[in-house]
Amino acid sequence: MRVRATLAYNGTPYHGFQRQSPEREPTIQGEIERALKHITNQAISVLGAGRTDAGVHASGQVIAFDIEWRHDVDDLQRALNATLPADIAVMDVAEAAAGFHPRYDARSREYRYTIYNSTLRHPLHRLYALHVSDPLSVPAMRAAAQRLIGEHDFAAFGQPTIGESTVRRMQRAEVQADAPWVTIDLEANGFLYRMVRSIVGTLIEVGRGRMPVERFTAILESRDRSQAEATAPPHGLCLTWVNYE
Amino acid sequence: MRVRATLAYNGTPYHGFQRQSPEREPTIQGEIERALKHITNQAISVLGAGRTDAGVHASGQVIAFDIEWRHDVDDLQRALNATLPADIAVMDVAEAAAGFHPRYDARSREYRYTIYNSTLRHPLHRLYALHVSDPLSVPAMRAAAQRLIGEHDFAAFGQPTIGESTVRRMQRAEVQADAPWVTIDLEANGFLYRMVRSIVGTLIEVGRGRMPVERFTAILESRDRSQAEATAPPHGLCLTWVNYE
Repeated sequence: MRVRATLAYNGTPYHGFQRQSPEREPTIQGEIERALKHITNQAISVLGAGRTDAGVHASGQVIAFDIEWRHDVDDLQRALNATLPADIAVMDVAEAAAGFHPRYDARSREYRYTIYNSTLRHPLHRLYALHVSDPLSVPAMRAAAQRLIGEHDFAAFGQPTIGESTVRRMQRAEVQADAPWVTIDLEANGFLYRMVRSIVGTLIEVGRGRMPVERFTAILESRDRSQAEATAPPHGLCLTWVNYE
Repeated sequence: MRVRATLAYNGTPYHGFQRQSPEREPTIQGEIERALKHITNQAISVLGAGRTDAGVHASGQVIAFDIEWRHDVDDLQRALNATLPADIAVMDVAEAAAGFHPRYDARSREYRYTIYNSTLRHPLHRLYALHVSDPLSVPAMRAAAQRLIGEHDFAAFGQPTIGESTVRRMQRAEVQADAPWVTIDLEANGFLYRMVRSIVGTLIEVGRGRMPVERFTAILESRDRSQAEATAPPHGLCLTWVNYE
C-alpha cells in the first residue's frame, strides 16, 4: 500500500532532505529509508514534497512510500518514531491513493522564515531563527512582500529544480512582527531552488532601509539572478505545510 | 571596579555554571573567565547568582567580577559577546557597588520549567522543553503548586548548597497552560540543590493523575528526600531572573 506521512525535523544536523548516493552525510530521506528498512526489512524509496536544503527545518514536510504492511498505519507511525533519531518525527500517517505523489500533487507549499530582531544575539534563539541586530522596518518589508503576490517569473530569486520554467504563483507573502520576532510566511504553488532564502535576504535589506521598495520590485522584474541580495542562511527557514486538493 | 552582568545561555553543551578545577568539561563560569582573560589578560574570578546544573539554561543569570577597565562598560559587553561562544551571551552590563555579591545579595530567584505536552515528540521543541506524552491536568498541578507558597522546610525536594537550613520562602508557584505548552514558574528567596526539578518531577505525577494533591502536600510536609518523585531532566529548566533590592 501507499502511505502518506507528515514529518517534522530539526535540519541542523542533516545535509538536507534528499538522499545522497553514496550517502556521505546524513539526510532526512536517508534516515527515513533506513528506519523503514530496519522495521520491515524492505528496501523502500521515499518521495518528498520539498527538497529542503541542508540546515532547513520542517514542521509539515509530506512524504510518501509504498510498503507491505499488515498492521494498522498507527503502528507504523509508532515504529518509525521509536526508530528515527530524536531530530526527526512522524507527526501523522495515513493510507494514500496508489498514485499519490507528494511533490506533483501538491497544490501549494508554505514556508516560514523566522528572524530574531534585537541588538543582542540570544543563545536560546540561535538555532531556529536568524539574528538581525539592525532594526527592521516591518511596514517596508510588508510593502515589498506584497509585490510578490500573483504569478511572476521569479528567475531573479532562484533556479528551477525541475523543468525550465521559473514562473510561479505566490498566494501569500506576509511579514508579521511580534517584537523581537519578525516572521515571513510565503505560500506558492512551487518554489525555485533557494527562492525563499533569496527573497528573505533581499527583504531584510529593505527592512534595514538599505533598499527602497521600488528597487525590490525592479529586482523581481529583472529576472536576473545576479540582482538579488545575499541568500539568507538556512537555520531561520522551516517548511511548515504542504496543501493538496 | 566591580561589574555586574546578566547572562543568557544554552546549557546543553555545558557541564553547569560552576567551573571545575581542573576544568575537565566546559562550564559557563570557565568560559566567562576565559573570555575575560582573553580580553584583559587579567585572571578574573566570576561570582554567579545561581549554580545551574549541567544542561540547565538561563535567560537571566547574574554574575559579578572585579576588573581593571578604563573604557565604557558597553565596550566590555561588546568585547565579551565577540569573544564568548555562540551558546553564551552577555545581555546587560553595569558598574556595581564594590561589595555587590550576585548570590548573597539576591532577594529572590525565578526559574521556569517548560513542558511540551503532546502525544507525539516534536524535534523542533526537544532542546528547551520536556516532552510529556500523557495528558496533564493543569488544574491539579496548579492546586498542588499552590501548597508550595510561603515558608516551608523543603528538605523533601532537595539538599542545601550552603549552610544547613532547608527552609526557603516560595513567593510564586504558577502553572500555566497554552496548549501544547505547560510552564511552571517558581520564585523563591533561594532554592536547594535540584529543588526545582524535584518539585517539577512530582508535579508532573500529580498532572498525570497518578498522585493526589494531598499526597503532594504530604511529601512536602515529610521533609524526607526519598518521598519525592523522580527529578525532572535539566533541559526543560531555565533560570529566568534574579531580583535584588
